[in-house]
Amino acid sequence: MGVLGATGYVGAELFRLLAAHPRVALNWATAESRAGETLGGLRLVKAGDAAFRDVEIVLSALPHGVSGRWVGVARAAGRRAVDLSADFRLDPAAVYGLTEFARPRLADAALVANPGCYPTAALLALVPLARAGLIDDAREVVIDAASGVTGAGRNPRPDLLFGEVSENYKAYAAGNTHRHLPELRASLARDGGFTGDVVFTPHLLPVKRGILETIHVPLTQALPAREAAAVYAAAYRDEPCVTILADRLPSLQDVVFRNQVALGVVPVENVQRPRLTVIAAIDNLVKGAAGQAIQNLNVMLGLPETLGLPC
Amino acid sequence: MGVLGATGYVGAELFRLLAAHPRVALNWATAESRAGETLGGLRLVKAGDAAFRDVEIVLSALPHGVSGRWVGVARAAGRRAVDLSADFRLDPAAVYGLTEFARPRLADAALVANPGCYPTAALLALVPLARAGLIDDAREVVIDAASGVTGAGRNPRPDLLFGEVSENYKAYAAGNTHRHLPELRASLARDGGFTGDVVFTPHLLPVKRGILETIHVPLTQALPAREAAAVYAAAYRDEPCVTILADRLPSLQDVVFRNQVALGVVPVENVQRPRLTVIAAIDNLVKGAAGQAIQNLNVMLGLPETLGLPC
Amino acid sequence: MGVLGATGYVGAELFRLLAAHPRVALNWATAESRAGETLGGLRLVKAGDAAFRDVEIVLSALPHGVSGRWVGVARAAGRRAVDLSADFRLDPAAVYGLTEFARPRLADAALVANPGCYPTAALLALVPLARAGLIDDAREVVIDAASGVTGAGRNPRPDLLFGEVSENYKAYAAGNTHRHLPELRASLARDGGFTGDVVFTPHLLPVKRGILETIHVPLTQALPAREAAAVYAAAYRDEPCVTILADRLPSLQDVVFRNQVALGVVPVENVQRPRLTVIAAIDNLVKGAAGQAIQNLNVMLGLPETLGLPC
Amino acid sequence: MGVLGATGYVGAELFRLLAAHPRVALNWATAESRAGETLGGLRLVKAGDAAFRDVEIVLSALPHGVSGRWVGVARAAGRRAVDLSADFRLDPAAVYGLTEFARPRLADAALVANPGCYPTAALLALVPLARAGLIDDAREVVIDAASGVTGAGRNPRPDLLFGEVSENYKAYAAGNTHRHLPELRASLARDGGFTGDVVFTPHLLPVKRGILETIHVPLTQALPAREAAAVYAAAYRDEPCVTILADRLPSLQDVVFRNQVALGVVPVENVQRPRLTVIAAIDNLVKGAAGQAIQNLNVMLGLPETLGLPC
Repeated sequence: MGVLGATGYVGAELFRLLAAHPRVALNWATAESRAGETLGGLRLVKAGDAAFRDVEIVLSALPHGVSGRWVGVARAAGRRAVDLSADFRLDPAAVYGLTEFARPRLADAALVANPGCYPTAALLALVPLARAGLIDDAREVVIDAASGVTGAGRNPRPDLLFGEVSENYKAYAAGNTHRHLPELRASLARDGGFTGDVVFTPHLLPVKRGILETIHVPLTQALPAREAAAVYAAAYRDEPCVTILADRLPSLQDVVFRNQVALGVVPVENVQRPRLTVIAAIDNLVKGAAGQAIQNLNVMLGLPETLGLPC
Repeated sequence: MGVLGATGYVGAELFRLLAAHPRVALNWATAESRAGETLGGLRLVKAGDAAFRDVEIVLSALPHGVSGRWVGVARAAGRRAVDLSADFRLDPAAVYGLTEFARPRLADAALVANPGCYPTAALLALVPLARAGLIDDAREVVIDAASGVTGAGRNPRPDLLFGEVSENYKAYAAGNTHRHLPELRASLARDGGFTGDVVFTPHLLPVKRGILETIHVPLTQALPAREAAAVYAAAYRDEPCVTILADRLPSLQDVVFRNQVALGVVPVENVQRPRLTVIAAIDNLVKGAAGQAIQNLNVMLGLPETLGLPC
Repeated sequence: MGVLGATGYVGAELFRLLAAHPRVALNWATAESRAGETLGGLRLVKAGDAAFRDVEIVLSALPHGVSGRWVGVARAAGRRAVDLSADFRLDPAAVYGLTEFARPRLADAALVANPGCYPTAALLALVPLARAGLIDDAREVVIDAASGVTGAGRNPRPDLLFGEVSENYKAYAAGNTHRHLPELRASLARDGGFTGDVVFTPHLLPVKRGILETIHVPLTQALPAREAAAVYAAAYRDEPCVTILADRLPSLQDVVFRNQVALGVVPVENVQRPRLTVIAAIDNLVKGAAGQAIQNLNVMLGLPETLGLPC
Repeated sequence: MGVLGATGYVGAELFRLLAAHPRVALNWATAESRAGETLGGLRLVKAGDAAFRDVEIVLSALPHGVSGRWVGVARAAGRRAVDLSADFRLDPAAVYGLTEFARPRLADAALVANPGCYPTAALLALVPLARAGLIDDAREVVIDAASGVTGAGRNPRPDLLFGEVSENYKAYAAGNTHRHLPELRASLARDGGFTGDVVFTPHLLPVKRGILETIHVPLTQALPAREAAAVYAAAYRDEPCVTILADRLPSLQDVVFRNQVALGVVPVENVQRPRLTVIAAIDNLVKGAAGQAIQNLNVMLGLPETLGLPC
């Protein structure tokens, strides 16, 4: 395997997981600014010097925009690719790699667009309800999502300094303007058949890793706790990377460093129309990025899906 | 003045602000478990030993349940009282002291129920829209609120240990079961005339102080950014403790250690029905508790409203 | 294997590592207050109900004082034991299990006293210098150690609340009164032959896990950087759990979640007498407790020393 | 007054304190990259556009190197100056403004070099012992100092990102190479008459503000706790910004947001030669920088020394 962009937060996680993977070999890894340095015994190279032809699959953790170009180079060299950037997520020629919904299409995929961290959590929470026709599209699905700072990358930005983030909390991209929204809506339509309105507001948490989404779902019918749980139990019965919590709500602590989504489902009291609150937690660097990329890689290679992954 | 319960997080903030207040004297302060200790030059006493008759106004930062009883003692002794607990917030005999809406009734109030921290932020965000008839009650108002740990008090609880809270984040009381909800709905009806549904979900942030609420408002009509801002500008034109941010969203950093609410207002794009997202930030210990109590005290005494307060 | 006390911070780490260990089976685990609950598929029992006779080795993460008693029960039942408490660390009948120095005595040990977290880091830093006779005992060795909060345990204490620890830092047990000091001095004498004075001052860091010790060593002779590095390289040539950093200082980030000590060695400039500053970092829950217990267990069982350990 | 460099962490604190000062007017403030913006009602200008002749005293919070040049401009214009950078701290033409020791020379000072944050805490801890001839110069004074991130400034640096600092801790400039050392030694010689060796090692804490120094002092004679306390009590009897803690150790929480040093003094047990451990805590931005600058300014102007300062 080859890794493009191995030194950002996502790339480093990907490198770490692949280096410890029992069945795949990591042949090369690139890092423009640290080429020549050694990482885990491997000499980092520039992307222009990477031996694309030597590997079966190229995984890219390069920034949006740059990634698409180098993944194109890999594809032109006849290599399969998993792109962790947003560049192909709306491209019909790529398989949108939310593993739990894409499994049958992954085995032969030439190009997998690894989902964004926010959509991964939201889709795993919403698709079962959408497939069951339970979401009332006359009212909006409201998602408030909070992410740790590694979701914003490793480039030094004044607003990501410890002195600014610690003891602070804020929303950003409010008003439904986050770039993950189209991806989320497209997948919700494709995988869940839901085309109603979604309001998505991300927030920056003073933690290093983890995403928690509080998802407010208007229902077409009342759904007691037990029935709501049954919808999820049926949808995810044999899924190794999805946990439905029975009697408590998920927190970041349940999922950090693991390739797992934890879901908690609560009917809403004290309102006139039926609603459900769903809480979804993932590690943005694992199930939200590098871990899911390995999960997809395993399926692409016909390996056990969770091989090399802490689930 | 006398302070009941001066050693919890709210009580300590109240003590600190009163001790530095240029026009009111702090005659006594109580603390059951630390009676006999000296705090800022004052010897702490047990509530049973407090000289209720020596003071004009008693402020209570005792826990819910306990507070009501001692405030009753103060009232029976003919003293005016500001109760920071929830004990009188639904009591029609008390003035609900959200200063900005209660001002005319505060001057002669015998008993002021200081609002909860979560309702303070939510009400300052929602009442102007409600009064203008802009909230669509066929869809729900959804509030996701996140609070620092001092909002949960100073009693040692396993889930409030640094080892559990740091690098973590979670929702609690999901499903609309938080005890602040009835207070919020009652005030929204009384002060804003709005009786539609509200979904309120609190979260625990890994910060010491501060509340940020992301408030999703379904509108009866489209409201461009400038008009939305105008509604708030009109409502809070001369308010010293309310800031409407023009071109950015509020964060905790804007309000901690200050008796101030910061509001940011954003129309929601990419949806079919008109909506507004309002972000409200306060310091839970200041505008959300002790600061607002002083603000109320100042009005009760005919003093300048922000005397002794960092606004 | 059996684990006594599986739900404190150390016990939970021990449970987690043992449950994932490829060659040892975890037969039972105890937890007085959570007996009956299921943890990782295993039903927790009270210590009094544990089947001591069913296991080869008992590991105890019980609190100091309590641990000694239950380890005695295990020993009386003829079982080998690894005690992670302080109860046997000064007992000549137990092997003091700092693996790197105790290896030959571990294979047949009936009772291993797992070292304290602070001494583990300090001893790995000091013993090579002591053995080489390089420490000047006419001046004191000064150790300033800083630990994350999990080192203080999981019992709710007011001073361990997030509201008290976050944005704070303090020393404790100053004046050389920490209970780890006798253990440290005993091992320094036994393993290093050094009997001079040591001043040890622990501090509480606002982090969850990790210990960093800044160790000030007066030298009997000048020791340039290269020679200092050579002393450590010789001492730890084949050690899998010790890393000597060449050109930078260790930080907590280098060692958390790993059974590893990272050492940085710097000669002191601008002084008249020769001195060395050694920085040692470990994860207090791994190499400082549960990880080292597994490392010892592996040696006791004749397994590869780092089996099941992230090094 | 005029402030050079009002938007770094120190400059912003200086601006905030001066803007709220009851007796001095803030005429202008500079910020190269944000010139034209309004801060607290004042329009920021470039240093080249500042009206040096309009003010009585210029305070500079510019970076080392740059500051000296602009302070030179202020002096050439005949203005008095307080320089918060390191540029004049070793210059005999400037008064080294550690207020408690420099008071008599400040009244008429034309140029005050405001001390570094680390030396401020260390000197307030050491000078009383040094003046009393109690420090044994045959052994070294060892200082381990830990600082919050605002001490490293507001320029985006990869190692100051939240993702790197949170849950981390490290030493830097180990081996006695920190640039504050010469300043510390010079003042210790001048103000305390002590010329022995000092080993100073700074560390980076995951907190926003505050410095805690653990200072290890070899003594010429045994000094019981009461006598040690008496040395400090005598030295600081009437000092409004120095607190000697009697029965507990200082923590950051005791001093943040205050222009105060808190000192704790503990004799060292279990050693053969007499030693004292002194813990000193300050807020690096207040007593360690901007607050002390105001304290000096007040003395220069003949105002009450703590006017406008939270002590």
